Amino acid sequence: MLQQIEHLAVIGVGLIGGSVARSLKRAGYAKRITGIGRNAAHLEQAKALGVVDDVSTDIARGVEEADVVLVSVPMSAYGAVLSQLTGHLKPGAVLTDAGSTKQHAVDAAHHSLTDDELARFVPAHPIAGTEHSGVEASFASLFDGRLCVLTPMTQTDTAALETARTMWQATGSRLMQMDAKEHDDFLAAVSHLPHLIAFGLVNAVRKLGDDNHDPFCFAAGGFRDFTRIASSSPEMWRDIALCNREALVEKLDALEVELNALRKALEAGDGEALVNDFRAAKEARDAWLATHGEGL
Amino acid sequence: MLQQIEHLAVIGVGLIGGSVARSLKRAGYAKRITGIGRNAAHLEQAKALGVVDDVSTDIARGVEEADVVLVSVPMSAYGAVLSQLTGHLKPGAVLTDAGSTKQHAVDAAHHSLTDDELARFVPAHPIAGTEHSGVEASFASLFDGRLCVLTPMTQTDTAALETARTMWQATGSRLMQMDAKEHDDFLAAVSHLPHLIAFGLVNAVRKLGDDNHDPFCFAAGGFRDFTRIASSSPEMWRDIALCNREALVEKLDALEVELNALRKALEAGDGEALVNDFRAAKEARDAWLATHGEGL
Repeated sequence: MLQQIEHLAVIGVGLIGGSVARSLKRAGYAKRITGIGRNAAHLEQAKALGVVDDVSTDIARGVEEADVVLVSVPMSAYGAVLSQLTGHLKPGAVLTDAGSTKQHAVDAAHHSLTDDELARFVPAHPIAGTEHSGVEASFASLFDGRLCVLTPMTQTDTAALETARTMWQATGSRLMQMDAKEHDDFLAAVSHLPHLIAFGLVNAVRKLGDDNHDPFCFAAGGFRDFTRIASSSPEMWRDIALCNREALVEKLDALEVELNALRKALEAGDGEALVNDFRAAKEARDAWLATHGEGL
Repeated sequence: MLQQIEHLAVIGVGLIGGSVARSLKRAGYAKRITGIGRNAAHLEQAKALGVVDDVSTDIARGVEEADVVLVSVPMSAYGAVLSQLTGHLKPGAVLTDAGSTKQHAVDAAHHSLTDDELARFVPAHPIAGTEHSGVEASFASLFDGRLCVLTPMTQTDTAALETARTMWQATGSRLMQMDAKEHDDFLAAVSHLPHLIAFGLVNAVRKLGDDNHDPFCFAAGGFRDFTRIASSSPEMWRDIALCNREALVEKLDALEVELNALRKALEAGDGEALVNDFRAAKEARDAWLATHGEGL
C-alpha cells in the first residue's frame, strides 16, 4: 500500500522533473504537485500538460507547504537553488534530488543547508533519460524498471530516507544504495565517458569534411546509435563533466589504455589480439543485455 | 525499366549476401540466384528461407553460369575466394563485392584475377548492416535508401560498371562513386573507429568490476545504444580493422586530439571550452540526422 503524501514540490520541471511528476501522478503518490522554476511560461506549459497542479517562480514560497521537495535542476544551479530553499522547508519535510553526480550534490547541500535540513536530504540519481530536454519530452514510464541510486550520508535521517525511498519506488524505479563517490565513479565509466567520446567523435568526423565530401553522408545506423548521446544538452553535460571531472579524467585514462592496446595490435597486424579484445567486449555486452537489457 | 539478368551468384550468403539476394528477389532482378559457400547446412538454410534458388559449395562450378557474381565474404577470405573463382567466370560476366574496405578488395583482385576479369570487377560497399550475423538475420529492405559506394578502378569496363550499378540500384541503395582510398578513409572515421571505441569502452567498463559491484548495472539506454556495435562479429571486425589499419590509426589519432582537448578543459575546469565543443558536435549531428537520418 503506497504511503501517499499531501504535497510534492518539484524544482525544475524539465525532462527528469516532469517525468518524475508524471510517474508520481500515475502512482497517485501526491495529492498536489507544485512545479517550481524560473521561467513562468515553461511552468504554465507544464501545468497545461497536466504534469503539475500549480506553479511558482519563487522557490521559498513554492516549497514552504511541501512534504517532499525534489530538486531536479542542472548541477550548476544547485548552489543557487539550495541557498534560496534553506530556511523555508516545512518541519519534517524531506528533500531529495535527481542529479547525475552525487558528490557534487552532497557538497552543495553541505554548503547551503542547515544541519537539520542536511539530515533530511536524500541524494538520488534515477538512471534514465533521453537525448531530449524539456517538460514536453517528459513521460510517466521513463523510470519503469530502471535503477535509481540513493546515496544517503552518515547524517541522513532514517525516516527521511524511508520517505525518499517510497517516493522513488513510486516512480517505477528499482532502488539501490551506495556511497556518493562510488556512484560517481561507475557513472563516469558507463555514462559520462560515453557522452564525452560521442561529442569528441562527432567533432573528429566534422573536421574531416571538405568542399567535395561530407563525411557524415557515409554514416549509417551504427553511427547514429553510437552518437545519439551527442545530441544531448551541451550545457547539462558541461555541468556533469565538470562536477565529476576527477573520475572522468580517470576513466579517460582507462579508455586510453584500451585504445592504445588496440592501436598497437593494429600496427603490429596482430589479428589475434584484436579478435580477443573484441570478443571479450562482445561477450560482456551480450551478457549485460541479456540480464539488464530488458526495458531499457 | 529494370534490366533483368538470367543468373546471379552470391558467394557468402550471410547478413549482407542474404539481404542483397532478398532485395534482388523483391525487385525481380534475376531469374535465378545461386548461393555459394563452404557450409552446406548454412546454404540449405538459405535455400529453405527462400533467399536463394539453388546452392553450391564449389565456387568454380557455382559461378560458371552466372551473369553477375557477388562476393560477400569476410575481408580475410577475399584471397581464397578470388583465387578459386579466377578462370571460371562466364565471358562478359560481371564481378562485384560488398566488402567494407575497398582498397583491400582492389588489392586482392589485382593479385588473383586476370586483366580481363579485373576489368569486369566493380568494387562496391553497401553501407548498411546490423550487429547480427547470418542469413537468418537478412532482410529485403536492409539497403532501402542507404548509400552504396562504388569504387571502380581505372581499368574498369564501362559496361561492367553499368551492370553493377543496375544491380546495386535494384537493392534499393542510393549510389555514389569515389576512389577506394577515399572511401576507406571516410569509413574509418564514421564506422571502423566507432566499432573500435565501442569494443574498447566495454572492455574498460568490464575491468572496473569487482566482487561487490557490477559496473554494467549502472548502464542505461545511452550505454546500450553507444555500445550496440560492440555486439558485432569479432572476427568480421578484426578483418576490417586489419584491412584498413593505416586509416584507422590515423583516425584514432584524430579522436585522441579531441579527447585530449576535452581532458585539458576538464582539468582546467574550463566550462566554456567544454560547452563549445559539445555544442559544435550536437549541431553537426542534429544537422546530419535532419538531412540523412531518415530511413537509417
